[in-house]
Amino acid sequence: MVRRLAVIGVGLIGGSFAMALRNAGLVEHVTGIGRSRENLDSASKLGVIDRATTSVAEGVQHADLIFIAVPTRQLPPVLLAMDSFVSPEALITDAGSTKQDVVAEVNKLIPRHAHRFVPGHPIAGAERSGAAAATANLYQGKRVVLTPTANTDSSATQVIEDLWRACGAQVSRMSADRHDGIFAAVSHLPHALAYALVHRVASSAEREVLFSFAASGFRDFTRIASSSPEMWRDICLTNQAALLRELDGFRDDMARLRTLIAAGEEKGLESFFGTAREARENWLASKYPP
Amino acid sequence: MVRRLAVIGVGLIGGSFAMALRNAGLVEHVTGIGRSRENLDSASKLGVIDRATTSVAEGVQHADLIFIAVPTRQLPPVLLAMDSFVSPEALITDAGSTKQDVVAEVNKLIPRHAHRFVPGHPIAGAERSGAAAATANLYQGKRVVLTPTANTDSSATQVIEDLWRACGAQVSRMSADRHDGIFAAVSHLPHALAYALVHRVASSAEREVLFSFAASGFRDFTRIASSSPEMWRDICLTNQAALLRELDGFRDDMARLRTLIAAGEEKGLESFFGTAREARENWLASKYPP
Repeated sequence: MVRRLAVIGVGLIGGSFAMALRNAGLVEHVTGIGRSRENLDSASKLGVIDRATTSVAEGVQHADLIFIAVPTRQLPPVLLAMDSFVSPEALITDAGSTKQDVVAEVNKLIPRHAHRFVPGHPIAGAERSGAAAATANLYQGKRVVLTPTANTDSSATQVIEDLWRACGAQVSRMSADRHDGIFAAVSHLPHALAYALVHRVASSAEREVLFSFAASGFRDFTRIASSSPEMWRDICLTNQAALLRELDGFRDDMARLRTLIAAGEEKGLESFFGTAREARENWLASKYPP
Repeated sequence: MVRRLAVIGVGLIGGSFAMALRNAGLVEHVTGIGRSRENLDSASKLGVIDRATTSVAEGVQHADLIFIAVPTRQLPPVLLAMDSFVSPEALITDAGSTKQDVVAEVNKLIPRHAHRFVPGHPIAGAERSGAAAATANLYQGKRVVLTPTANTDSSATQVIEDLWRACGAQVSRMSADRHDGIFAAVSHLPHALAYALVHRVASSAEREVLFSFAASGFRDFTRIASSSPEMWRDICLTNQAALLRELDGFRDDMARLRTLIAAGEEKGLESFFGTAREARENWLASKYPP
């Protein structure tokens, strides 16, 4: 049971966490902390939060649990602003898409709170944004990864895990390093590819003709290229090493596919495409479909 | 007005063409030609066709219009089988995804009918298949590309264009070479990338973990990797030259993106992603959205 929850960044992710916990009867009072008065007012009106403030220092005082759901690059100033005001018993967690950078920033900027900081990553869509998009069931059936370090209190990790389960999520634990490697492969690389494909078409002298013949396959393939450029700039830079490894591996895979095409390897191509299709169909039918 | 239409390959594409023309009151009698008795029976029961046969030779006799909607690699045997039986006034068109290869096969295998063969490519989804998936409105608002050659009768091209318009389609004309270049860029390259990404994940020792954390972005990005491996093997081989050009260009684009990431070029990355997102949003709001 959380008496006082402080949510820093009351958007889709932060707002939905507050609503889900309230729905589960697990939170008494929610303070929303944000930079935009307009979004905070909207969150208040919608009952997502009970109190609003633009001051991190003021907002985190007396909180038992602090949930940080801000863009990656706003994490350092938020940590610095909260350091002197966080209660020594408060638990802290976050929702960042990359985790090694969060662990490093926490150890560097708020070392005395680091053992009560449980790094987390809810895998939930980010197409809509703002408090108005928040819903109590956003995390129902979704996966959440926690990446506690050797220094993290195990009881703190357990509390955060239990809260996410109460939101309907399936929780996994792993190292921050492993987390970042997995998401480089299944999320960051495809985003880079989708952005690069649209960029390629958009940079062509023939772009109007090309777009005019692009169909629904192109649309779905590039849906993720409509994500926030700032967010993806940050992810590319914070998860640089793992993403570069994926980019290099994919370049080599494409070189092999190119060789099959150039050599007219019918069986090799059919097997390449067939393996992919079968794996995708198995995934869609699996225990953890998208 | 078509008195007798022969459709070779009564699947989604062929069946929908027959239904749309019938709906427009532009066809009197439809013969369906196919290899699968089961699919032909289904087409007959659904009223898609009036007569069914597994013989190309028998089916094309007395037809005024022959519509070929078979997988690319079945085109040569179909052309050979029809050559002696096509009426000297009949118009012929097709629905293949690549066009230079069709033009070459037609010139080589049925030269005396080539001037009445109008190569075509309706840009319509292929996720469902079979006669049961056919609908009269499949082509409503869809684009169709015709690629007549210098040898094609202009009146034949006009008749085929008018029939497609009657199906609700928007018709463009261009050279087969230009068609194949455009579709290599906006369709064949993204298919290759989607297959390669799924193949990469499926080939990993960690595939189960990776798939278990793949989310809706990965699902949509890879939707086209659930397409037919045989069809895409054929497209890669028939449009080999244009696809290899796209693969090489994309490889160079990815190398540039890699440089931005490795160098930590914040502004360059934000601009790269921002350009892509803006272009995609403009496309979705354009005269020719997907």
